[in-house]
Amino acid sequence: MPTHRRIVLASRPQGAASAANFRLETVELPPLADGQVLVRNHWLSLDPYMRGRMNDARSYAAPQPLNETMIGGTVGIVVESRNPKFAVGDPVAGGFGWQECGISDGTTLRKVDPALPLSVYLGAVGMPGVTAWYGLNRIIEPKAGETIVVSAASGAVGSVVGQLAKMAGCRVVGIAGGTDKCSYVVDTLKFDACIDYKSEDLGRRLDELCPRGIDGNFENVGGDILNALVPRMNPHGRIALCGMIAEYDATPMVLNNPRWFLLNRLKLQGFIISEHMQDWPQALQELAAGVASGRIRFRESVVRGLENAPAAFLGLLKGRNFGKQLVQLS
Amino acid sequence: MPTHRRIVLASRPQGAASAANFRLETVELPPLADGQVLVRNHWLSLDPYMRGRMNDARSYAAPQPLNETMIGGTVGIVVESRNPKFAVGDPVAGGFGWQECGISDGTTLRKVDPALPLSVYLGAVGMPGVTAWYGLNRIIEPKAGETIVVSAASGAVGSVVGQLAKMAGCRVVGIAGGTDKCSYVVDTLKFDACIDYKSEDLGRRLDELCPRGIDGNFENVGGDILNALVPRMNPHGRIALCGMIAEYDATPMVLNNPRWFLLNRLKLQGFIISEHMQDWPQALQELAAGVASGRIRFRESVVRGLENAPAAFLGLLKGRNFGKQLVQLS
Repeated sequence: MPTHRRIVLASRPQGAASAANFRLETVELPPLADGQVLVRNHWLSLDPYMRGRMNDARSYAAPQPLNETMIGGTVGIVVESRNPKFAVGDPVAGGFGWQECGISDGTTLRKVDPALPLSVYLGAVGMPGVTAWYGLNRIIEPKAGETIVVSAASGAVGSVVGQLAKMAGCRVVGIAGGTDKCSYVVDTLKFDACIDYKSEDLGRRLDELCPRGIDGNFENVGGDILNALVPRMNPHGRIALCGMIAEYDATPMVLNNPRWFLLNRLKLQGFIISEHMQDWPQALQELAAGVASGRIRFRESVVRGLENAPAAFLGLLKGRNFGKQLVQLS
Repeated sequence: MPTHRRIVLASRPQGAASAANFRLETVELPPLADGQVLVRNHWLSLDPYMRGRMNDARSYAAPQPLNETMIGGTVGIVVESRNPKFAVGDPVAGGFGWQECGISDGTTLRKVDPALPLSVYLGAVGMPGVTAWYGLNRIIEPKAGETIVVSAASGAVGSVVGQLAKMAGCRVVGIAGGTDKCSYVVDTLKFDACIDYKSEDLGRRLDELCPRGIDGNFENVGGDILNALVPRMNPHGRIALCGMIAEYDATPMVLNNPRWFLLNRLKLQGFIISEHMQDWPQALQELAAGVASGRIRFRESVVRGLENAPAAFLGLLKGRNFGKQLVQLS
């Protein structure tokens, strides 16, 4: 029987996640049953949300089971099909997780347009892009002339948020770690400005760069960044809470002064994109058009080989990636 | 020239508000100009929001100016009219503030139905009632079978929130201070339960009384109460943030773990009812019908005489009132 490789969750993190929490295995690929397809995964997506699933604690989804393949989005090519809806050679996006091949009855597979590079379906035209689209359009609801602040601005989600907000006529200020990322956010993504939280005084720079206050915040980081933003939100400001990567590996932080939510009638809304499937078709269509036309640009951090996925994931949690973090499978 | 009495803000509080922040004055009533009416105020409303206006700090409205009549809602009778829209004897609700008479061109006066007791237009069929209606219906959007928790449950706002939520088919748990208030909330207002935050363990009681979690929170208090509620909110829970009376006179408190907003996709929305005038007509109509039919019950704490308004207001900030706090003017 043919084999392939996968990575399972070997143990749950005590504090920060580490390489010891993962285990690479070689397992057999069973023959296809009627209705099934076999996909060879070309790209594996690494995303911050996976860190939450590694815990056993109450989270927005069931924990990742121990000794099973780590969850995750994938794009690949159908290599064998016993399902009339899929032909060998079809490019498909799915959620096979951290493994080289996957078998599916097709219900969770989505055929994608080979006119775009396949990896984009894990980024700007995939879950991260739809996350950006939903949080911006459905929670922040930006109006032309408003000021929007996006943290993790060079990342898979933040980069799309800012570019969509610019298309909506907003002033867009990014927050990112390091001069390289900040330069990219301004020069390539065309945000109005970007603050390097590692070397600049965040509060003072927000005051300088948002002279009319902040109307919307797409928040990927939380912690000190969220605490700097809340007091600077304008009346009726909206915060789309997408992630709190500052806290995933660390002690939970407090929100210093929730009174601002009353004083300025602010809205804070947490969300998870898998609960808003009704918006995916429109979002994907707009995102694909934006990428095809060049109006939405993106950047990828690629490591090669499944065995390198854990190290790349741990780097992602520390902000070492630059753009969408992907694993290219051999 | 005739005179009347008023209370002005004499100084801004340093820490807790005190009687020394107010000054009783006797001032002249000028003759009416064309188009004006003179109203003798029968009832003055005292509300927690007034504490915020006493500060000079950034708040959701301009500060109460020093040496001018304290703001506030009033109900009274037209005693002189040079405006064809108002006749002597008309009962009117307005915002004349802490004074015995008021002069208006009529634009901010609302004629009220004398079939109900006049004081109700400062409570269940006035600003507090509309506040309850809006926060519940427009932010919490309760569904039958959901669990709603209301703090300051025996108060002018909380009492209406809970009764409307019961009409919507919800399980309703109140939080109030003291056994008298809690008994009233359950026995008269017909909430399902009420927790005495002064003598009971709030967290443990919430766990007991909300076995299916909390779907909606109408929050009037903030501080420790909000921190006990947030971790117990169900996925997609909604918090209508109406007040934080625990903090008005004290040090701002922190929100212990904002991560719950992400994990459970919670919404927190601060609001101030004067910004939602479009909803007042529908709300007032429904509230008046509820009071007339006896489905909405209410309780008033009445002090007599303008000179007693400051002490009553300071008591309100400490929860010494029981139901809507009013001043009956002589």
